[in-house]
Amino acid sequence: MNNRFYLLPLLAASIGASAAVITSPSGNFTLEVDVDGAGAPYYSLDYKGRKVVSKSGLGLLADEMAFDKGFVITGTDTTTVDRTWEPVWGEYASIRDHFRELAVDLESAPGTSPERKMTLRFRLFDDGLGFRYELPRQDKANYLTLRRESTEFDFGHEDPTLFCIPGDYDTDEYLFSETTFGGLAEAMASYRGRHTESQAVEGLSVQTPLLLKTSDPLYINIHEAALDGYPAMLLDADPSGKKLSAHLVPDRLGVRAYLQLPFNTPWRTLIVSDDARDILASQLVLNLNEPCKIEDTSWITPMKFVGVWWEMFTGHKKTWAYSDDYRAKPGITDYSKLPSNGRHPANTANVMKYIDFAAKHNIPGVLVEGWNEGWEDWCSYRKNRQFLFDKPYPDFDIDSLTSYAASKGVKLIMHHETAANAADYERQLERAFSYMKEKGYDAVKTGYVGAIIPRSEHHTSQWMVDHARHVIERAAAYRIMIDSHEAPRPTGLCRTWPNWLAQESARGGEFESMGGNPPSHTCILPFTRLKGGPMDYTPGLFQTDLSYYGEGKTVKAGTTLVRQLALYLTMPSPLQMACDLPENYERFADAFQFIEDVPVDWRDSRYLEAEPGRHITVARLDKASDDWYVGAVTDENARKALIDLSFLPKGVKYEATIYEDAPDADYRTNPQAYRIRRQTVDSRTKLRQPLAPGGGVAIRLQPRDKALAAKK
Amino acid sequence: MNNRFYLLPLLAASIGASAAVITSPSGNFTLEVDVDGAGAPYYSLDYKGRKVVSKSGLGLLADEMAFDKGFVITGTDTTTVDRTWEPVWGEYASIRDHFRELAVDLESAPGTSPERKMTLRFRLFDDGLGFRYELPRQDKANYLTLRRESTEFDFGHEDPTLFCIPGDYDTDEYLFSETTFGGLAEAMASYRGRHTESQAVEGLSVQTPLLLKTSDPLYINIHEAALDGYPAMLLDADPSGKKLSAHLVPDRLGVRAYLQLPFNTPWRTLIVSDDARDILASQLVLNLNEPCKIEDTSWITPMKFVGVWWEMFTGHKKTWAYSDDYRAKPGITDYSKLPSNGRHPANTANVMKYIDFAAKHNIPGVLVEGWNEGWEDWCSYRKNRQFLFDKPYPDFDIDSLTSYAASKGVKLIMHHETAANAADYERQLERAFSYMKEKGYDAVKTGYVGAIIPRSEHHTSQWMVDHARHVIERAAAYRIMIDSHEAPRPTGLCRTWPNWLAQESARGGEFESMGGNPPSHTCILPFTRLKGGPMDYTPGLFQTDLSYYGEGKTVKAGTTLVRQLALYLTMPSPLQMACDLPENYERFADAFQFIEDVPVDWRDSRYLEAEPGRHITVARLDKASDDWYVGAVTDENARKALIDLSFLPKGVKYEATIYEDAPDADYRTNPQAYRIRRQTVDSRTKLRQPLAPGGGVAIRLQPRDKALAAKK
Repeated sequence: MNNRFYLLPLLAASIGASAAVITSPSGNFTLEVDVDGAGAPYYSLDYKGRKVVSKSGLGLLADEMAFDKGFVITGTDTTTVDRTWEPVWGEYASIRDHFRELAVDLESAPGTSPERKMTLRFRLFDDGLGFRYELPRQDKANYLTLRRESTEFDFGHEDPTLFCIPGDYDTDEYLFSETTFGGLAEAMASYRGRHTESQAVEGLSVQTPLLLKTSDPLYINIHEAALDGYPAMLLDADPSGKKLSAHLVPDRLGVRAYLQLPFNTPWRTLIVSDDARDILASQLVLNLNEPCKIEDTSWITPMKFVGVWWEMFTGHKKTWAYSDDYRAKPGITDYSKLPSNGRHPANTANVMKYIDFAAKHNIPGVLVEGWNEGWEDWCSYRKNRQFLFDKPYPDFDIDSLTSYAASKGVKLIMHHETAANAADYERQLERAFSYMKEKGYDAVKTGYVGAIIPRSEHHTSQWMVDHARHVIERAAAYRIMIDSHEAPRPTGLCRTWPNWLAQESARGGEFESMGGNPPSHTCILPFTRLKGGPMDYTPGLFQTDLSYYGEGKTVKAGTTLVRQLALYLTMPSPLQMACDLPENYERFADAFQFIEDVPVDWRDSRYLEAEPGRHITVARLDKASDDWYVGAVTDENARKALIDLSFLPKGVKYEATIYEDAPDADYRTNPQAYRIRRQTVDSRTKLRQPLAPGGGVAIRLQPRDKALAAKK
Repeated sequence: MNNRFYLLPLLAASIGASAAVITSPSGNFTLEVDVDGAGAPYYSLDYKGRKVVSKSGLGLLADEMAFDKGFVITGTDTTTVDRTWEPVWGEYASIRDHFRELAVDLESAPGTSPERKMTLRFRLFDDGLGFRYELPRQDKANYLTLRRESTEFDFGHEDPTLFCIPGDYDTDEYLFSETTFGGLAEAMASYRGRHTESQAVEGLSVQTPLLLKTSDPLYINIHEAALDGYPAMLLDADPSGKKLSAHLVPDRLGVRAYLQLPFNTPWRTLIVSDDARDILASQLVLNLNEPCKIEDTSWITPMKFVGVWWEMFTGHKKTWAYSDDYRAKPGITDYSKLPSNGRHPANTANVMKYIDFAAKHNIPGVLVEGWNEGWEDWCSYRKNRQFLFDKPYPDFDIDSLTSYAASKGVKLIMHHETAANAADYERQLERAFSYMKEKGYDAVKTGYVGAIIPRSEHHTSQWMVDHARHVIERAAAYRIMIDSHEAPRPTGLCRTWPNWLAQESARGGEFESMGGNPPSHTCILPFTRLKGGPMDYTPGLFQTDLSYYGEGKTVKAGTTLVRQLALYLTMPSPLQMACDLPENYERFADAFQFIEDVPVDWRDSRYLEAEPGRHITVARLDKASDDWYVGAVTDENARKALIDLSFLPKGVKYEATIYEDAPDADYRTNPQAYRIRRQTVDSRTKLRQPLAPGGGVAIRLQPRDKALAAKK
């Protein structure tokens, strides 16, 4: 990691000042911060001369004292920072972090009590704003029991379109609504939670990352950065006023956060542009996170993987459980004497097949779910020991598999499903990680399906945010990479902990077997969920019509086969699954070649076209070679993508391998119709590429001389 | 461990039977069990022809189904068991486990739904009764969300005296009330909790072990045995009916227990006798616990210890904290740069003095409190990281001290104060135990002062009972002995986990510096708290008047110096502190000789005199020699103990070394006046030994030939 750091002090601190105003480095944004007559702080934000956020309140309310009014501004400090840093992995090899910073020091107004101090820190980038509350040591309080954060986002007279999912304390695995403030009540009423334990929030609440589009249009992403030691933020909508306000996830006793001072909240973020592509390209959330805390990151290896997983979703009636005896208790039952149900794919022979397939196709990882004791009794919340993380099922010969995988140059990926018993996972964590390392595993997929234990907590309450941090820190100590499912949604912490390769934290590809994901879903996720960090979406579904398997599954996935290839570009992640069964990949071996070739770590990225919910076209440069890759997706409508290759170095010929929807392809009727063709291109080429309904395109661009050399 | 096991089947199972009646092996007790017209099970208990417990209800109520009515008896099974077993340590080298057992099988009455099954298992000993609920696998339920246990103890027309402390979900560190059902409301209203977080229970609730004394008199101890996977039981009193009923400690969401079937509840226990000494001698609670689960127990070593501890209570203004900067945060603050407050006794030089003292006086252990980062900020509940268990303060050179202690044949005892953040303790546990072993520690005192995290829990709710079990199991895996403070009160689990040497779980000696313990307190504890297991009471207080230290401490302890010696006999524990400062022991070196000599593990014990709240006289035979020891204590009244030495082997002369209150001793005015005299005695000797108000006597009896040989 290499930080170049420039500090350009602009204004000296001024005591007793009011109404602080700064502009972003380019001058596009203007931010104003002040306190009103009651001493309540507020801010407003302009973009290119237009009001984005009207005067909106700021503040925190704790049992011990209120930080939302009765303040005077005692000083402001403005600085410009321009630095670049190199992420361990990601969409760019180097990221510029360029902003003007404003610190507004507030103190309790004379005559008010108790004495309080707070600093509001704003960072105004050319692609948006981040701000946070900094609570220094106070004379009158060491601890705060936080009851409310009063941050507001007032959109004034705008009536933007909202791309949103309902507020929920325990799950984010929803399809998006595309609605307005006026339509929000109806849209939100239509949801059902995924889990029976889903804790939908009363009132009109939505989750971040939230995307808004105004009529002009302006695109606005609201989220948070560096969520640590604090609960996740939802947003309550006030439809009459077109206003959103922070709604912190409480614990079940009603407390939002227990804080010890000094404490800085996470950053509240607004990414704003009149060009939708800028939203996708923005690195603002990562920039607001702390630098990498892992000294030696050489062991962190982005990778693709296949896995024993989709078999359980396809209608093969395969099970995570080894036995049908649902009363088997891990640690108590002698599993060696338990009858197998014969439908348990995490068995030695089957896993060896996956290892063989991975080795043959240069896929570094093989995930195996259902390998350990506890799946018989898929009931969380009622007991303290759901799973054992060091007890393989009798038909899973972990030592043989580990050495077999090693002999093939493949790594097994561990799976730790906790059934949301985070307390018990912490109980077992050190032993589970030791066991992983002893058995040669370097990465683990964690899961939290169900209602959380400790029973005072929600999936996104402060304690669980802290749990996630604990797991990632301990994983780093063991040199273990994490792919967390059902964890608090990401806020760019993967910059600080790059062993946090990916998270689920949204409705992923698995839902293609549970109701389906419409094509628009993956045209929204990059504008919303992905702004916090990579998603383990599990692309690569080739057999999209699940009736193929019989067994009563009638779901057809919302995708063509080619679109699944494009997702490796439009849904970038350093950890990408090829989710389908090896047998399906063997049936479409030429198409699978793209998955085999496509990298998961990038030197550069160019967003060529973008409109939320409609389409995305992106080009990316491999970090390890000079190959470019292009991916494009559309919604349920056919579309012609305009792929302007002017990003290619001038004068260099490239061989393009184009994986495209066949002319008669359609995600509803003919999803597996594709063509692969080759074409020589250069920086002057503009491809007008047809995309089928629910389809896409995936292109590999190799410098022609190297492509030819490779063929010889 | 050597179990001799005899099974004497008495009755074959009979189907469709009703009203089961059994008697105890000696015939003293008669138990009747039946269901009433509503199918509700009940029991009653007679002792020597007198009703002890009138018809009293039994049952459990879960959200899923009710186990408290609608039953028919489908079978009963009666067995007699007579076996002996050898505890790893304790009051006896060998314990007889002799009872008649009755199993009553209940099933849902025809026409009731859902289908249910339950077995009531009773064990009727010659010193009382134990019974539990056994929930087998059910066709209609795998899990139960328990809302109530309906166990009753109805004392009919009796109006017994109760020796009790108030019901509380979070603390048991109370002085006892000696009251009646009629006086209970007034007695309970007088209590204040020790902690601000104390969760006193609404209504008239008391804790177990509870002692009742009827007018005849009969002595009745009510408690529970083998509390595992279930919350602790309080007792709600119904003053009008002289009835007690079970009150399970709930979590903060109101659930009593989450159970997976099959499940057996802890045993509910009644120890009953017309001779108070039998209550003290009873091993009923241990007998109802499971045998030892630790295969090799050679590393479990009963011991005495001194410690850096009382300095913080005496008014020396010594602190557990290294620094006065209360905002220091463990793991964040660089303690090496933190200014010491200069009042931190857990420093290398001071601990070496304790090691020297221990080595000189054959005390195997030295406890050190305040050795690790985190004490500055003595505030629990507000943050997730209170203490680090592998970070010594900068003035505590753990490596030097470990090797210094080893060179002197002494072991340091670890201290883990968790500030009741049990979740964080579990987070650190494996590393904390590894660190201990790495540094040569074999035993740890744990503490849970404050309100529990997870915030859904109480100190004695199901999750915390499970936490205690987790800690003791993991400790056993590391060969670590535990002395737990502020943990769920003991229920004999130390039989199963003999590395659980002792617990606090009552108002201990530390309160001599915080309000004081009246002399009667230690005349009640052996009848109540100690029936669950040994207490780390911390006897050995020689400087009983704390005004001695200046600094404003005016408390005078409720004890003479000699009484403190007697406590080593009347409050038996395999882990006994000599709590006072070395300098005080050097001032009374001849008296300290008794502490140096007295064992902590016994071959046999004889209770010679006993009356709850009044006096106790006990003789014990050293497990490792032929020496007997006698201890007697009285309440605030002077008394003449009658010490009948007929338990000595006939014809053998013993040299008695008698540590006695001086004639003018009085705990209020002259607590340190004592005499030591020697006398030859044998089995015909009856000592009439005066005890001062608040005083006692401590006697060592050595076979005269060995005593003479030792002097040569």
